[in-house]
Amino acid sequence: MSAPPRGFPASEYRARVARAQSRMADRGLAALLLTTEADLRYFSGFLTRFWESPTRPWFLIVPREGDPVAVIPAIGAALMARTWITDIRTWPAPCPADDGVSLLAETLTEVAGHGGHVGLPMGLESQLRMPLADWRRLRARAGVGFTDDGGIPRGLRMVKSEAEIDRIRAACAVADRAFARVPEIARAGVPLDEVFRWFQCLCLEEGADWVPYLAGASGPGGYADVISPAGPYPLRRGDVLMLDTGVMRDGYFCDFDRNFSVGTPSPQVQAAHGALIDATQEAATAARPGQTAAGLFQVLHDALARRGTPGSGRLGHGLGMQLTEGLSLIPDDPTVLEAGMVLTLEPGIELGPERVMVHEENIVIREEGCTFLSTPAARDILLLEG
Amino acid sequence: MSAPPRGFPASEYRARVARAQSRMADRGLAALLLTTEADLRYFSGFLTRFWESPTRPWFLIVPREGDPVAVIPAIGAALMARTWITDIRTWPAPCPADDGVSLLAETLTEVAGHGGHVGLPMGLESQLRMPLADWRRLRARAGVGFTDDGGIPRGLRMVKSEAEIDRIRAACAVADRAFARVPEIARAGVPLDEVFRWFQCLCLEEGADWVPYLAGASGPGGYADVISPAGPYPLRRGDVLMLDTGVMRDGYFCDFDRNFSVGTPSPQVQAAHGALIDATQEAATAARPGQTAAGLFQVLHDALARRGTPGSGRLGHGLGMQLTEGLSLIPDDPTVLEAGMVLTLEPGIELGPERVMVHEENIVIREEGCTFLSTPAARDILLLEG
Repeated sequence: MSAPPRGFPASEYRARVARAQSRMADRGLAALLLTTEADLRYFSGFLTRFWESPTRPWFLIVPREGDPVAVIPAIGAALMARTWITDIRTWPAPCPADDGVSLLAETLTEVAGHGGHVGLPMGLESQLRMPLADWRRLRARAGVGFTDDGGIPRGLRMVKSEAEIDRIRAACAVADRAFARVPEIARAGVPLDEVFRWFQCLCLEEGADWVPYLAGASGPGGYADVISPAGPYPLRRGDVLMLDTGVMRDGYFCDFDRNFSVGTPSPQVQAAHGALIDATQEAATAARPGQTAAGLFQVLHDALARRGTPGSGRLGHGLGMQLTEGLSLIPDDPTVLEAGMVLTLEPGIELGPERVMVHEENIVIREEGCTFLSTPAARDILLLEG
Repeated sequence: MSAPPRGFPASEYRARVARAQSRMADRGLAALLLTTEADLRYFSGFLTRFWESPTRPWFLIVPREGDPVAVIPAIGAALMARTWITDIRTWPAPCPADDGVSLLAETLTEVAGHGGHVGLPMGLESQLRMPLADWRRLRARAGVGFTDDGGIPRGLRMVKSEAEIDRIRAACAVADRAFARVPEIARAGVPLDEVFRWFQCLCLEEGADWVPYLAGASGPGGYADVISPAGPYPLRRGDVLMLDTGVMRDGYFCDFDRNFSVGTPSPQVQAAHGALIDATQEAATAARPGQTAAGLFQVLHDALARRGTPGSGRLGHGLGMQLTEGLSLIPDDPTVLEAGMVLTLEPGIELGPERVMVHEENIVIREEGCTFLSTPAARDILLLEG
C-alpha cells in the first residue's frame, strides 16, 4: 500500500498561519485563541490521543504577526517541542487553584496588547474547551477583549491543501480495503457486535492508526437508524447490513459507508441501492466550484425524490481532521464550494416505517468538477453469504 | 470470558437522578442542564459513538422533580427512545438559524419555571458543549438563571455503583488479556507503530467494544514521554516498551499500562520496575475511605522518593465513563476517598534526562481498604524477545 509520508513540513503550518493572519488583519483581530484538538493541531501539528482525557485544557494563540504560542500543560511540552512551535509555555496541570488561567491571561495580554481584540470560535460546531468558571476568570483577568473570530479557522480548514487531500485519500484507501474484506467476517448467523469488532480489526490491519468511529446497523430489507451501537443480534438472510466508518490515518479521517445484502437482495433493496448510487453520481456531477452546499443538497434531494422517498436530515458534510466539519448539505447552508473542499455525499432513502438505507462517498472539489476519494460503490449492493 | 450483561436497568438511572435531585434541593437548583457525552449518558443511558461528530449539540435537563427531559437532534430520537427517557424533544439539526436554542430555552423555562436556577457544570474538567454564540442566545432567551451546579454530576459520578464497578472490572479484564498476549506482536525489530496497531487488534479480540485510547513509548532503558503517538522506529534490544490503554466496554473504561523489556533488562530497569510496583502496593495499602486524594499522592510520592526520583505531575486519577474523571492524585486535591470510588495509581520514576518509567493499576475503594480491578503486575518487568 502506498501512502504519503507522515506529518507535514513546517511550510504547511506557516502557510496556514499566514492565511489566518491575513484574515485577522481584515477583521482587526490581534490574536486568535484556540482550545480544541483540531484547531490546535491545524496550526501546530500537535497530534496525540491524549485529548481523550478531559482533565486538562490546552491553548494555542495565533498572533496577528509572528509564530503561534502554545500555553499547555507540562505533560505536553516534550511532544509540542517536536512540532514547529518554539514558544511553549507550560503549567503543572491539573492545578485546581489556577489551571493555566493566569499564564494564559498574561500571555494573551503580551501577545495581543492591552485592549487588543482576541477572536475565538463561537459559531456553529464550535466549542470552548475550558471550564466556564475559568473562562469567566480569564475574561476578568486578561487585559484584552474577546470577540467572535469570524469563523477564520473554520473557513481555512474547509479548503484543504494537496497534502491534506493526500492524507484523506490514504484514509479512504484504508476503509476501501477493509470494506472489500467484510465477506471474511460477516455472514448469516454472525452477531452484529462481532461484525463491528472484527471490522475494526480489518481497518487496523489495512493501515488505520486507530478507529475513532464506527456505526452501522442491520435489519430485514433496511435498518432503523444509523447512530446506534451494535447489539448481539445475529445477521439473518434478507438483512441489509450497513457499516459506516471514520478511520484515522496520520490525523485525517475518511467517512463513508457500504451496504451489504445477507443473501440475495429483494428487488426493493436492489432498487433502493441503485437509486442511492445514481443520486450520488448526479450530485457528484453537480459538485463543482460555484455550486453551494444548499444547491448540492437540492440536487441530491431531487435526485432521491425522483426515485423514492428521500430521508430527512442533512445529505452530506465537510470532512478532514474531524469526522464532520465545516459545511453541511442542508437547505440553508449558503457555503459556496471551492476547489480543495472535501465532503461527503450521503443520500438516504426511506423504505418503510423504521426502515432506511443510507449510502456515503467522499469527494474532493476540483477546478473542473469533483473527484472521488473513496472508490465509488457499484449499483449492485454487495453480497454476503446468506 | 464472563462479563456482566450489557446496559443497566432503569432503576440504576432512577437512583442516579434521585441522588442528584436531593443535592439539587440542597442547593436550591430547579434543574441541571447537561451537554457532554458522559453527563448525558450518566443520567439517560444514551450510548453512541456519534459524539465523534462535533456538529450537533445535545442537551439533557434533570429537573428537581420528575424524570429528565432530552432536547436533542432528530437524528438521535430513535436511539434515545430505546433508553428509559420518555420526554424527548427534537429539532432538525444542524439548523444554522436556530440550532436548538429556542427549543432548549422554552423547555428550560417550562421545567425550571420563570426565574428558576439552572445549574451547569462550570468547574475543573468541565466543558460546555455548545457554541459560545448559542450560549449567549440561550441566556438572553431562557427565563431562568444559570449558575454553577456545585459539581453535582461530578461528585455523583466519582462514587460508582456495584453495576458500574462490574463494568470497569470487565474492561480491565479485556486489557489484562491483551497485555498477556503482547509477546505475540512485539519483539526486537518490530516498529512501534506496528505494535500499536496490533495491540489494538488484541484489545478488540479480547472483548473491547472499541479502543478510544492507546499511548505508549519505547526507548533504551526508559522513554521520553507518555502521550506521543507511535513512530515507525523498530524496538531494539535493551528498550523498555510501555503500552497504556483505555479500552471501552459497555460504556466504561479501564486505564492502565504495562512495561516490557526487550531482551534481558538492565539492573537499573529491573530495580526501577520493582520500585514502581512496591510504591503501587504501598499506595494500595493506604487507599481506604477517609484518606484524601492529596494524602494518597503523598504516600505514593514518598514511596517513590525512598526508591529513586519521583516523576512530576499527578500520580493517579478517577476513572469510569471517561478515561480520566473526578479526583486527581496531586498535592492540592482535598477529595476524601469513599467506598465505590475507582481510581488509578500511576507512579512514575525518572531514570535520567528524557528517560522515565511509569506504571499504572486500577483500584476500587472498599469499606475495608481497596481491591485491584486490573490484575496487579509482578515486580519483575515483563520480557519480550530481544
